[in-house]
Amino acid sequence: MNPIDELNMKGELARKSSYYLARMSSDEKKSALMHAAKLIVENSELIINANKEDLIQARNNGITGPLIDRLILDNARINSMAEGLNQIALLEDPLGEVLSMKKRPNGMHIGQIRVPLGVIGIIYEARPNVTVDAFGLCLKTGNAVILRGGKEAINSNTAIVRIIQESLVSQGFPPEAVQLVGNTDRESALAMMKLNKYLDVLIPRGGAGLIRTVVENSRVPVIETGVGNCHAFVDESAKTGMAEEIVINAKTQRPGVCNAIETLLVHSSIADTFLPVICDKLREHKVEIRGDKYVREIIGYAVPASEEDWYAEYLDLIIAVKVVHSLSDAINHINKYGSQHSETIITENYTNSQRFLSEVDSAAVYVNASTRFTDGFEFGFGAEIGISTQKLHARGPMGLKELTTTKYIIYGNGQIR
Amino acid sequence: MNPIDELNMKGELARKSSYYLARMSSDEKKSALMHAAKLIVENSELIINANKEDLIQARNNGITGPLIDRLILDNARINSMAEGLNQIALLEDPLGEVLSMKKRPNGMHIGQIRVPLGVIGIIYEARPNVTVDAFGLCLKTGNAVILRGGKEAINSNTAIVRIIQESLVSQGFPPEAVQLVGNTDRESALAMMKLNKYLDVLIPRGGAGLIRTVVENSRVPVIETGVGNCHAFVDESAKTGMAEEIVINAKTQRPGVCNAIETLLVHSSIADTFLPVICDKLREHKVEIRGDKYVREIIGYAVPASEEDWYAEYLDLIIAVKVVHSLSDAINHINKYGSQHSETIITENYTNSQRFLSEVDSAAVYVNASTRFTDGFEFGFGAEIGISTQKLHARGPMGLKELTTTKYIIYGNGQIR
Repeated sequence: MNPIDELNMKGELARKSSYYLARMSSDEKKSALMHAAKLIVENSELIINANKEDLIQARNNGITGPLIDRLILDNARINSMAEGLNQIALLEDPLGEVLSMKKRPNGMHIGQIRVPLGVIGIIYEARPNVTVDAFGLCLKTGNAVILRGGKEAINSNTAIVRIIQESLVSQGFPPEAVQLVGNTDRESALAMMKLNKYLDVLIPRGGAGLIRTVVENSRVPVIETGVGNCHAFVDESAKTGMAEEIVINAKTQRPGVCNAIETLLVHSSIADTFLPVICDKLREHKVEIRGDKYVREIIGYAVPASEEDWYAEYLDLIIAVKVVHSLSDAINHINKYGSQHSETIITENYTNSQRFLSEVDSAAVYVNASTRFTDGFEFGFGAEIGISTQKLHARGPMGLKELTTTKYIIYGNGQIR
Repeated sequence: MNPIDELNMKGELARKSSYYLARMSSDEKKSALMHAAKLIVENSELIINANKEDLIQARNNGITGPLIDRLILDNARINSMAEGLNQIALLEDPLGEVLSMKKRPNGMHIGQIRVPLGVIGIIYEARPNVTVDAFGLCLKTGNAVILRGGKEAINSNTAIVRIIQESLVSQGFPPEAVQLVGNTDRESALAMMKLNKYLDVLIPRGGAGLIRTVVENSRVPVIETGVGNCHAFVDESAKTGMAEEIVINAKTQRPGVCNAIETLLVHSSIADTFLPVICDKLREHKVEIRGDKYVREIIGYAVPASEEDWYAEYLDLIIAVKVVHSLSDAINHINKYGSQHSETIITENYTNSQRFLSEVDSAAVYVNASTRFTDGFEFGFGAEIGISTQKLHARGPMGLKELTTTKYIIYGNGQIR
């Protein structure tokens, strides 16, 4: 079947099943999630065998290193995916929440209630755990989901989705609550981006290239996730011990993730004393320092930072370092070069802390803490779909509520205009 | 200047001024809005003269009827635009609202606060009053706005924006808080849709064709507004007098607007008695009846409804009428053919009223009231930017809050992961 026909067919089935899902009770969804978790574990061998086919194919195609690692499924990883479903099952169901209810002068009662989005599309790359995770979050929030994973994981994904569908049927749910796109060519991704007739939202999960392609081509409303060019600004009044701890943590604790910092801004009045200490510590952690000319005057081993470095999301043990002459300089730099993800100021100055919180235009703005906390679990949501770097619908870590919308319901007794 | 250069320049200026606007206090914005209202009234003659040029051009281009009427500005209409600004000035400022604030186990306080979107783009057609209205709503919510109006109103819009900018400067605001795109070719609209570097959201205000073009071409997140194929379903248990009043009101009180009904669904068990009464009344209001075969068996003067009629947004004195055999049939018809705007059931059956509210997938779902109430003012918001028929970010009538986003602010004292 060509990808456009496949997507249209799956879109229609997803839409129909979404009406069904919207009517399921919290208890029914909880049971369905737990049953799916159980069936996944019971079928571990089947999943691992399918995964082996993907791994053979991947190695034949010359794929190596971290990409292979992301693809591998073993018993521990399968148990962990199932455990994720059990955790989602236990979270509070956000649906049905009454956000407001008021009586109008003409006697009508107008209420706003939380309802599912409907049909969610997710385009992702190699990790097969996203398949289980996305299913769990969407089912919990009463949404049907169409998954378009990468070709590297197609056998693993097919096996997983088949098991979940079998589980759904046994629990009285429509199997089309979760569907996998069989075609993994570029054409199927593009067809999905044009499926605005059936999809209420499209969420890309993956690298900057994938996200850019989706933003540029999608007619379906998109939630942009993940690109993080995050900053730490060490103000002149900072406690330097705290500043060192935060900068080292934010850069080195897990450099490959979106909430790690990529640029360090240091106030000029403490540059002479603070830079040598922090740069030596960063170097001990094998971090490459790229500095502007002021930094390079102080730090002999710093390599020159180019204009592109200020825009870069390294996701690696590299940091761009710049000396700024005021809080305003720091804020302007962040708002110009950043990706509006997460930024932190280390300061003891009250006014500066408030100005930083207010004027930095990012999803999460910190005072005296590491940017590494920008995460649905760390924020206490119990789940995370991704971290939105756009301003529409959701901003920052997205939990279950961000997979819902609202609806106005109006109780009248004959009112006309 | 070519449209791409013009938009990039205006985008950069808008972004810069948006940081400034975000810092203005509620009182300062209130004064600025009231001053702009005053200056618009004082410069009525200048605006009317510019408008005359538009009218001459329009007549030379063979434009007539309602399109000319929408374009005309006289003293009454200018006063009414200014009055609109004064009303916006008096509304509560939604910015700064703390939506949540909690202490995490590690001692960090995480708060979510309401902030401006940043830069809003609005593409609209002939009505020059949108220029003033959009400016007022955006300034109130701390957003910079780039306006791209239709070529028919370019002289009127230019005059209005110049007066507003003069007023802004006199009040200490950046004039780039509101900018008008000078180029009114199709190219400037397309350039605006690609301006995702500077625009946080794009709102099309106009007909279905404009909205479709924006949805299909925009890289900027869009809020879809306005298309309304609304339904009334008269259930078997309806009070027929109430049903007649609601159907007549929803169809005829103002047929050209998006919350008027386009299709009437009648339960088969009351079709024989209800249809002759309601159809005669609709005919008295000069409404053309297009019926399915069951309707035509009862109503001799009904013309045949085609498949396209069920999808149609007539915005005119035409109604499609269909007999359905159950509540489920009615819900399925609405979910299949509707535009997810506003629907009403007229019923005395409790279970059916609850099922209709729950299962109809539209922005506003009514029991025993006219769909004509779907409106920001009628809902008590004090303002309206449009009526969203999408599910992301905003659904239904949009007030000031829908022109805002949120930001997480985190107060730490040295926390690291």
